[in-house]
Parts: sequence; C-alpha cells; structure tokens
Amino acid sequence: MVTRDRQRRVTITDVARHAQVSTTAVSKVLRNAYGVSEAMRAKVQAAIDELGYRPHHAARAMRGRTFTIGVLLPHIRNPFFADIIDGLTEEISASGYQAIMVQSGGRDPADERRASDALVDRQVDGVLWVAPVCTRAQLEKLARDTPLVVLGRHDRSALYDCVLDDDEVGAELVVEHLIGLGHRRIAHITQKDALGGRTATLLHTIRATTYERVMTEHGLAGHIAIAATSYTEEGGYEGTRELLARDPRPTAVFAGADQAAFGALAAIHEAGLSVPGDVSVAGYDNARITGLAHVALTSIDQDGAIMGKTAGRLLLERIAGRTAAVRFSVTPTLVARRSTAPPAEA
Amino acid sequence: MVTRDRQRRVTITDVARHAQVSTTAVSKVLRNAYGVSEAMRAKVQAAIDELGYRPHHAARAMRGRTFTIGVLLPHIRNPFFADIIDGLTEEISASGYQAIMVQSGGRDPADERRASDALVDRQVDGVLWVAPVCTRAQLEKLARDTPLVVLGRHDRSALYDCVLDDDEVGAELVVEHLIGLGHRRIAHITQKDALGGRTATLLHTIRATTYERVMTEHGLAGHIAIAATSYTEEGGYEGTRELLARDPRPTAVFAGADQAAFGALAAIHEAGLSVPGDVSVAGYDNARITGLAHVALTSIDQDGAIMGKTAGRLLLERIAGRTAAVRFSVTPTLVARRSTAPPAEA
Repeated sequence: MVTRDRQRRVTITDVARHAQVSTTAVSKVLRNAYGVSEAMRAKVQAAIDELGYRPHHAARAMRGRTFTIGVLLPHIRNPFFADIIDGLTEEISASGYQAIMVQSGGRDPADERRASDALVDRQVDGVLWVAPVCTRAQLEKLARDTPLVVLGRHDRSALYDCVLDDDEVGAELVVEHLIGLGHRRIAHITQKDALGGRTATLLHTIRATTYERVMTEHGLAGHIAIAATSYTEEGGYEGTRELLARDPRPTAVFAGADQAAFGALAAIHEAGLSVPGDVSVAGYDNARITGLAHVALTSIDQDGAIMGKTAGRLLLERIAGRTAAVRFSVTPTLVARRSTAPPAEA
Repeated sequence: MVTRDRQRRVTITDVARHAQVSTTAVSKVLRNAYGVSEAMRAKVQAAIDELGYRPHHAARAMRGRTFTIGVLLPHIRNPFFADIIDGLTEEISASGYQAIMVQSGGRDPADERRASDALVDRQVDGVLWVAPVCTRAQLEKLARDTPLVVLGRHDRSALYDCVLDDDEVGAELVVEHLIGLGHRRIAHITQKDALGGRTATLLHTIRATTYERVMTEHGLAGHIAIAATSYTEEGGYEGTRELLARDPRPTAVFAGADQAAFGALAAIHEAGLSVPGDVSVAGYDNARITGLAHVALTSIDQDGAIMGKTAGRLLLERIAGRTAAVRFSVTPTLVARRSTAPPAEA
C-alpha cells in the first residue's frame, strides 16, 4: 500500500473523474459537509473504495484509515462522560467509525501521557481528549500527527479544535442561584491543579475563580471557602467533611462537578444533616442521573450529548482534511431541583 | 516526524548499534522475553528513547506483546462497570498493561461483533468481555486467537475463563428479602433476550428464572409479573410504567440491575407514588452510587472491583501461557437500604 502510494498517489481529481462528479463535490463528501445528497455520497464513496483513495493526512496516507476514533477520558465513572460518548457514537457510527476509549486518570500528566501513547500506538484516525490536564504544548505535539478535538478546555490553539461550555456563565448561574435563595456562607469544591498554580484554561479553575468573583461582587468575599480535592465522589466527600468542620459551617455547597456533589450528599448525610434542610448542594454537568427522583440534584446543564456529537463531527471533518481550528461553545443553563432551598436561618 | 520517518526510519539495527548490544538482545527486550537482565533492559530502553525508535504497531504485534488488554463493555453508563475497570486497572498496570475499551451495546450480537472486531484489529494481547450476549461458539472463535476472560456469564468452556457471581443466590436473596418484608405482589424487570428464547447461561435469564422459582415456592406464582425491557435507566423506566399500569399494581419491584432500578425510581416518582411508602425498589450490582444518601437503593453486592481484579490476573496468566480454563465465582450478599420497607397494606 505504501509503495503504491509513493509510486502514484491517487488524488481527489482521480476520484472526481472516476465518479464523474466535480472535485468540489468529492471534497464536500470528504468533509462530510452539509447539503450533499445521499446519492452523491454513495457515488463518491464507491469511487474512493475502488481507487483506494486515502485522504491527505500524511501519516494516515502511509497506513490507511483504521476507522477508529480514540477517546481519552479521565475515567468512566463520571456519568456525564457517558452522555458525551453517546453523542459521539451516534455521530461517527454513521460513517463506519468505532470509538475506543482509554482512561487517562484525569489528574497526573504522566498517566495521561501513557494513556495517550497507548491510543496513538493503536493507530487511531483521530483523538477526542476529554478534560486533559497536561500543557497546551503537549496537546499540540499530539495534534501535529493526529486530528485532535479537545473537550472541556478553554485553550486557543491553531492545531486542534475545542468543544467546551461557557464555564464562567455556568458557575455564575449556580452562585447567583444560591445567593438568590438567601445563602451567604456558600462553599465551593474544586479540583487540585496537577501542574501547580492555576492554569486559566482548565475548566475547574474557571469555575473556581468565577465563584470567587461572584461572591466578591455580592460583598461575600469574607465567606469564600474552597476545598481543593477532586471532581470525584471521594473528592466531594472529603472536601465536604473539611467544609462542614468549619465554624460556622456553610449553608450551601457548590460542587464543581456532579460526581463531587454525590460525594457531598453522602458526607452531609453521614454528619447527620439533611439536604436541603441544613445544607443545600448544587453540582455541575447535569448528568442524566442527577434528575432521578431520589437524587434530584440542582445542576448546570451543558448538554454532553451535543458536545460529544459535535466533537465527532469535528473529528470527521479534520480526518477529511480540514486544518483550520474551530471552537464550539455551549451556553449552559441552570436546572434547579430539590437539593437547593433557602437556608433555615434566613 | 512522518517526513523524517520516510527519509530514514530508525530500525532495530540502529538501536542495537547505539546500545552496543546484539539485535537479538534488542528483540528480546522488545518481546519482554524472560531471561533479560535489568541492566540490558535499561541499556536498550535508553537507546530506544534516544533514537526515538517506535516499533511499528503491526511489526510489534508480529514480534510479540502490545501490552494492551481490550475490554468490551455493553456501555460505560453503568457505574458497576467502573468498579470492574478500577479492579482490572489496578491489577494489570503493575505489569505495564493498559486497558482499552470499546462499547458493545450489550443487546445486539451484530453490534457486539463489530466492537469485538475493532478491538482485535487493534491487536490486543487479551480480551475481557463483560456480559456478552452472543453465542458461546462466537466467544470460542475469539478465544482460539486471543486470551479471553468472560465476565458475567455462566458458560462452561474449555477455551476461556469465566468470572461471575452466583446470580441464583443473588436473585434469591432479593426476592426472599421482599417476601420477608411482607410483599406478595413483587414484580421483576429483566432484559429482553437478544437471541430469542432464553439462554440459560445469561445472567439476566438466571435472575429472572430464580425470581419465578422463589415466587412459586412461596405460593406466589399468581403474582409473577415480568417486564422484559433492558438493564438500563430507560429499560427500568419503561418496565416500571408498564408494571404500575396493572391493577392491582405491584408493591415491590425487583430490577435486575441498579441502572434499571434508577429508572424505576424515576417512573414511580413521576406517577406520584413514593419509595418505599407505596412501592419498594431493589436493584442488583451494588454500584457505589447506590449507597449515596439520596439514592439509598437496596441491592446485591457482587464486588465489581474483585471481579475486575481477578479478570486481570486471569488474563495475565493466559498471556503468560496458561491454557486450562478456570471459573471464578463470587458469592453475592444483600445490602438492604431505605428503598425497601414493608408494604403499606400489609
């Protein structure tokens, strides 16, 4: 295959001639662009198959498509990631692609590196990286060889696409909601920063700094209380225990992720306190399980399925040859449920 | 990188020359063969790192191990699977192995086949297949080429290992618990069988037939009510709506999996009924989230982490050469929580 490619590389022009359509039409099919009829798509695909045409991403041209999208996830326990994967799968399976997933740990850049190497060694056609904690330079290194979409970071890079929600809007909605209910002692659970210091493009940093900003704007700077643990059940549990030990204790906890909010619920219950009677709890992500009757967690909806679907579409476009970087941002909304209510003492 | 590779690809010979060892020694290190000293391994690894030698995926697979375990999961939304993956990862990472996961859908053998092909194409050293719905013959076909451990099926095969819990004991514990509380109209939510007819080795079949047996033994055969949907939130939701429409409606629902129980909670709440006041709900799997204060679901603990850890150990043994098939069975226990209570009318 490599040898044949080198001797006489099949081009878009060859495909167009073979399919008896314009090169623009071929290019549209490859980009998976809108407004291409099914008949056109079938005709072009048949020509691609017959001629063995490989789109021009250099590395892939050497090895041929694997029809595999690699997905790096911090871990599979977070149900919000299942929403993302559902959206992604829906989008890419129509093009015959399969997603393979590797857990990256989500906290240690060295673990992430091993996970990303494992994926790249498996020769995927593109990578969706959810909530990486490594540097932008490392992401760009990967993006030079492999089409890359990053989900959940606010980077601006010319080499990869970003799918994100507006975390500043989301965090502001939660804090304003709690203040609006009458809370003043509102605490926050965030994630410890793996790289040391705060990286302004990481979503947990944006949520935490927005919390501080809104508290300050409402004259509540003296009540700012942050527990820096992690966006996991354990992190939410430990962080809440730490926050409840303060005197006076907070009347509301804004956990930066639903997973951490679940841990917060457990810690509050264990301390003999009730939700929302003694402490209100709000999360972030609106993972499907938050809506279930017995959880009923107030949260921020950023529509994981749409984010996953969009990430899939962007990857297919990149695989088809797009090189210009794009950003796709979801504007989040507040979903108020039974876990938040006015404070008892208000 | 690609360009440089084309100009002059680093070969094993280059690595051997650089490390001042034989190519056989390099090859042994790459194969991770026995009898290679730590000093030799370090010397060769240093040369590999300095030259940026990257064994070709296919070439390396021909030579030996890829240090990858492929995992087929129905879907990542079920939190019980996260317990399994945690256990697996803990066990295999010490040996330098990485797990890559593919969603198999868990219902349609054709989807499963595509997912399993995608994994095998990625040249994994072994496969952990969680809750497959295909035939034993298909599993054995895979097992002839790749070390295979199947989790959650009661097959007896000479070609692969099985890790399972004693689903008969587990289902009996739930039904006896509900009967012990005074319930008589106990309904069950099971999974529709993909292959048509009941396959006796599938866990959902065992749970369903055990439910029928225990009900019959207690003279409650007339109250047997089964909704055959799926082990998902949607399945639990739909199944429960169907069951609640009966007159008289059940006073308790035994969902075959926690995921389905979460859907049941939502449906009961939506119908304006309370848990456990109007309807008791029990699940199966004891996924970590079931213990959280606001969920507090009665469930069956089959220790997913131990099952995943054991599966990892069995795979490493098979990769190292074991061919005799083994079965590892966990004896489950009942964890009674607030979602089950005596019926109001008892």
